[in-house]
Amino acid sequence: MGKMIKGNHAIAEAAIRHGARLYAGYPITPSTEIMEYLSWRMPEIGGSFIQAESELAGINMVVGGAACGVRSFTASSGPGISLKQEGITQLYDEELPAVIINVVRYGNGIGTLYTAQCDYLRETRGGGNGDYRAIVLCPESIQEAVDLLGDAFNLADKYRTVSVLMTEGALGQMMEPCDLPEFVEPKRGPWAFDGKYSYKKVGIFDRDSMKEAVLMNEKHNAIKANEQRWEDGHLEDADYVFVAFGLPGRSTKGAVEKLRSEGNKVAFIRPITAWPFPEKAFEKINKNVKGLITVEANATGQLVEDVALTVKKVMKADLPVYCLPYVYGIPTMKAICADFEKITNGDIKEAF
Amino acid sequence: MGKMIKGNHAIAEAAIRHGARLYAGYPITPSTEIMEYLSWRMPEIGGSFIQAESELAGINMVVGGAACGVRSFTASSGPGISLKQEGITQLYDEELPAVIINVVRYGNGIGTLYTAQCDYLRETRGGGNGDYRAIVLCPESIQEAVDLLGDAFNLADKYRTVSVLMTEGALGQMMEPCDLPEFVEPKRGPWAFDGKYSYKKVGIFDRDSMKEAVLMNEKHNAIKANEQRWEDGHLEDADYVFVAFGLPGRSTKGAVEKLRSEGNKVAFIRPITAWPFPEKAFEKINKNVKGLITVEANATGQLVEDVALTVKKVMKADLPVYCLPYVYGIPTMKAICADFEKITNGDIKEAF
Amino acid sequence: MGKMIKGNHAIAEAAIRHGARLYAGYPITPSTEIMEYLSWRMPEIGGSFIQAESELAGINMVVGGAACGVRSFTASSGPGISLKQEGITQLYDEELPAVIINVVRYGNGIGTLYTAQCDYLRETRGGGNGDYRAIVLCPESIQEAVDLLGDAFNLADKYRTVSVLMTEGALGQMMEPCDLPEFVEPKRGPWAFDGKYSYKKVGIFDRDSMKEAVLMNEKHNAIKANEQRWEDGHLEDADYVFVAFGLPGRSTKGAVEKLRSEGNKVAFIRPITAWPFPEKAFEKINKNVKGLITVEANATGQLVEDVALTVKKVMKADLPVYCLPYVYGIPTMKAICADFEKITNGDIKEAF
Amino acid sequence: MGKMIKGNHAIAEAAIRHGARLYAGYPITPSTEIMEYLSWRMPEIGGSFIQAESELAGINMVVGGAACGVRSFTASSGPGISLKQEGITQLYDEELPAVIINVVRYGNGIGTLYTAQCDYLRETRGGGNGDYRAIVLCPESIQEAVDLLGDAFNLADKYRTVSVLMTEGALGQMMEPCDLPEFVEPKRGPWAFDGKYSYKKVGIFDRDSMKEAVLMNEKHNAIKANEQRWEDGHLEDADYVFVAFGLPGRSTKGAVEKLRSEGNKVAFIRPITAWPFPEKAFEKINKNVKGLITVEANATGQLVEDVALTVKKVMKADLPVYCLPYVYGIPTMKAICADFEKITNGDIKEAF
Repeated sequence: MGKMIKGNHAIAEAAIRHGARLYAGYPITPSTEIMEYLSWRMPEIGGSFIQAESELAGINMVVGGAACGVRSFTASSGPGISLKQEGITQLYDEELPAVIINVVRYGNGIGTLYTAQCDYLRETRGGGNGDYRAIVLCPESIQEAVDLLGDAFNLADKYRTVSVLMTEGALGQMMEPCDLPEFVEPKRGPWAFDGKYSYKKVGIFDRDSMKEAVLMNEKHNAIKANEQRWEDGHLEDADYVFVAFGLPGRSTKGAVEKLRSEGNKVAFIRPITAWPFPEKAFEKINKNVKGLITVEANATGQLVEDVALTVKKVMKADLPVYCLPYVYGIPTMKAICADFEKITNGDIKEAF
Repeated sequence: MGKMIKGNHAIAEAAIRHGARLYAGYPITPSTEIMEYLSWRMPEIGGSFIQAESELAGINMVVGGAACGVRSFTASSGPGISLKQEGITQLYDEELPAVIINVVRYGNGIGTLYTAQCDYLRETRGGGNGDYRAIVLCPESIQEAVDLLGDAFNLADKYRTVSVLMTEGALGQMMEPCDLPEFVEPKRGPWAFDGKYSYKKVGIFDRDSMKEAVLMNEKHNAIKANEQRWEDGHLEDADYVFVAFGLPGRSTKGAVEKLRSEGNKVAFIRPITAWPFPEKAFEKINKNVKGLITVEANATGQLVEDVALTVKKVMKADLPVYCLPYVYGIPTMKAICADFEKITNGDIKEAF
Repeated sequence: MGKMIKGNHAIAEAAIRHGARLYAGYPITPSTEIMEYLSWRMPEIGGSFIQAESELAGINMVVGGAACGVRSFTASSGPGISLKQEGITQLYDEELPAVIINVVRYGNGIGTLYTAQCDYLRETRGGGNGDYRAIVLCPESIQEAVDLLGDAFNLADKYRTVSVLMTEGALGQMMEPCDLPEFVEPKRGPWAFDGKYSYKKVGIFDRDSMKEAVLMNEKHNAIKANEQRWEDGHLEDADYVFVAFGLPGRSTKGAVEKLRSEGNKVAFIRPITAWPFPEKAFEKINKNVKGLITVEANATGQLVEDVALTVKKVMKADLPVYCLPYVYGIPTMKAICADFEKITNGDIKEAF
Repeated sequence: MGKMIKGNHAIAEAAIRHGARLYAGYPITPSTEIMEYLSWRMPEIGGSFIQAESELAGINMVVGGAACGVRSFTASSGPGISLKQEGITQLYDEELPAVIINVVRYGNGIGTLYTAQCDYLRETRGGGNGDYRAIVLCPESIQEAVDLLGDAFNLADKYRTVSVLMTEGALGQMMEPCDLPEFVEPKRGPWAFDGKYSYKKVGIFDRDSMKEAVLMNEKHNAIKANEQRWEDGHLEDADYVFVAFGLPGRSTKGAVEKLRSEGNKVAFIRPITAWPFPEKAFEKINKNVKGLITVEANATGQLVEDVALTVKKVMKADLPVYCLPYVYGIPTMKAICADFEKITNGDIKEAF
């Protein structure tokens, strides 16, 4: 079993081991330790660490690093990610592989803040200038964060796109045992600028012809076909299926075991990719299922949209989809079990 | 009938007539004429016009104007709106009424660009730091743009929130006859800073207590209950219902009339509010309807998500939802009619 | 006699009365009250007030205002003026009339600060990209500040150049009786952009031909010939001539009267223009004078360079020039008298 | 003899060999090649290269590097140096050693440009917020630039101050044979932040007490006493002494030899330090000298001020000081000889 390490530190070290050699960004709670760690660690292994003048400067330096074929990434939270939307779109449009780590927080730049999953819709639908989809990976533990970060870099390179590691503030701040990955030798991507003027080589998606929009959809479809990831349990006999990701997904798995031990036929799907959404998981659900329930750490209900869309698209059934939004922090097993009772009692109505 | 006027000019003049007295922003095609017009017009009526150093500076000046109780707004497109996401979230969180005009374009900051509806998901789900919903109004003509802009300011004030006027680049650039609205006398909102320190008075949603999340949801629910707007036709006997907004909505209405003249029982819903989505319109649809079809000016299909969710939520039926995305420009009646035939032939499969 | 008013407020009101209609800047102690006052006063008379994103944004907006023929100005202190050096050079080079108010402070952006005259060399020699000279006016009282500000705007227009009103933090912060000037009707300069493309009309000094360097020197020579301003006293019989400007100049005049009442043949020159330096005043000095003494509010001695150069150039004599630098605040009459004795005793050696 | 190398490349390589390990800046002609070279060279030797978002960001990163005890520097020209004035003052005030390379150009940010010496007064008197003096070193050849850069770093460390390498655009762009210096092992300065909070250790000159102004003057006096550098020739029998630095200094030495071969008793002083100005050189001048002549590459005459002040201070004589300003490029030997004749004919009058 691995040694105890803080989430943000583990993520920072893992990025280096997965071959990342350029970090540029600006500090913001609760992601700051990623940057702090890299400030001394990156130079140690010969990489580039830059505390930029601003979030904007940081993301644009990531654009530059990616164009040079270096594994490049940034990390931020809430308002910091908002400030980077234009640069993230640029990365996507120019097909420059890069990783964005969003240690999600609730709270704007000048108020209080706490752990949350409030950026789900933004990350899965693209908060920048429209019509693009980044790969979004959602770990439930520090170990999974560390491992998924490797997928994030590999998928970004494979599809020449942006990967987002979306994790909660709580995961960044907590400690767990974790085995760090092996060191990967960094190598320059074939799209890298090579000293000759090669803009055309870098940018495919300037979107100025119908052909390119077709290529973009082909890329999206390939990712949807090949890269759905999830964990599930008990889908074969479920009356109700919980859907939750990240730390709330972990609580939910516990709640499911508890509810089953009390005789309730409940199951779970824990999406590991939020985009592409793991639609294939839903094909495995018991045909007599009575309903689906999302567990989310936000105020308005966001994941529930993807679950309702998937029920409609994949299950072709008029099943109720309930939403349990927990706005302040990670929901406990106890809270989830209590709310489940309210659903079966009819005290909580379906969202869709 | 009104006099001929360019869309961007009409929008700029209408903002002034609806009482706006502060514009701050930065130019970007195809929204630039709004700013140009205001550069001479705002001073003429004693308002404040600021070409800021950057998009960020501009949106933060709008925050300041709104905090002072002045009707404040900005206009931009694509990457410019991306750069403003943090400020827009700030406005929403502080409950500062403001209007954002998004003259939507396809294309990042350094490439080619053209008219589109590619920001639908961003605008309806919030591209900033998460869990907020702005009111989104979508005109199909210059006249409607001019009129909805009044609603945008009034609704922003009424609910102390952000309103977005989302229109296509083509509407900003084209000319049509238009009656401009009457002048409204600007008055300061009661939340305005008054020279005494009154931060508490301005900001309710610092989201630091469960109570505020509850209040936020109550606000969202009130807007959903009261402010859905749409136009529809022929819903009572429809085999197929088209859903489209903006200029494509206008083309779609034409296509519906043409298809009906040829014996097809088709209908349309044209959402005027994209958020709140006009779910009530769907309650009016003929129970024997065979399917719904979105017409959209983007590459990936975005509106189709809201239509599928609404079919599931409101119609409680497993009806196919088709998506016709047109990526380069506004679809013609002819193209829509041709693609409708492909749907009835089974050549185009449902999206949901 | 005028009513009591604070220096910064009087300067701000006077700028408006002298026809200024655009202020853009960023606050910094001890000049901030100028900006505060204008924030409500400018809109009142239909002018433009802009609190910019930064000092850089502010000075570049002044460039824009000046190019449009509007009397435009900014005010700042210490580090704020440093940040504006590039824009100030731009104004000079493009021959765009503008006024810079420097309420001089000692102290960098993050430390303590106090009133001083430490920017003398920077203002008189140009801290920007080189080889330009701005007109520098140095008031000794609020009344003189208010009056000289009119000269600053008029001279800027007359010579199409930059005028600096250089005053100490103490003058900005203190109160005195003051008669405010009459209102001047603002009118656009003939160099103003007129809606047609007229870059050539605005910019003469792009310095790309020998002819323009010649024109620049001709302008400098005309200003030196016509615009030297100073106050003097007792030059005809002086053994020693004090030279001091601003508030220390006022103290020095008092010290001179006191020393004369005790039998010392002392005189004073108080430069009102620091550039052009009032060389003509030195022609009036008694030929048997034994030395000159500068009184300065800085640590290193700056004015003493111009006095030594002028003694050499105009008086053609090898006369000792002493420097009395007072680094913390405005020197008192008592301190000056005491140091004068050290000079006559030989305890203080000449600087040049 | 060394190999042929371009001035900017030689300077960049020399900085690394003298132990510099952080470069941050923004490109501007004619200094850009320094940055370009470092963009690949710095990473190669494990140093930090940062193309910042702006000149401001760059100089503030140099502040950071210097505070960490790393030999840090930037390079720029004209407007770029203007934009850095605030940061340069900060470095000086905090006693943080750093090197500024100014490849001097004539011309503002939007016009034409050419080689010049127009920043002499700015560099020798401090263009930032006042009352500081940086060490200014002025090479006449690429070899001397390379060697003086070592002095620049050593003197900055020794006195904990800012050193400026001031060279003309022409020297940056031309090629000459040059022996590059040996590699110096970089070591952290004792003032470096060490992970414990030690602001006090870094910053002495926050200038908030009389004691610190005294310490500052003591530092200035020590530099003046110990660090004057110059080259001279023929001072013992001179009728006229030319004073010139940099490439014009090199032309002037040639002109002096030519004029002497024609029977004129002329001499030269070539200041290598512009501040401290080499006053000691002037003590060696023949007592029967008839005048001094500056040769400068600017329009207004700048070096002439320091020569006139030094004649007054050191030679205690009423000697005429002539100024030969050459505004477009480096003066030729022929031009200097021709203008010398005008001086002896009385066609050119003394400046002081």
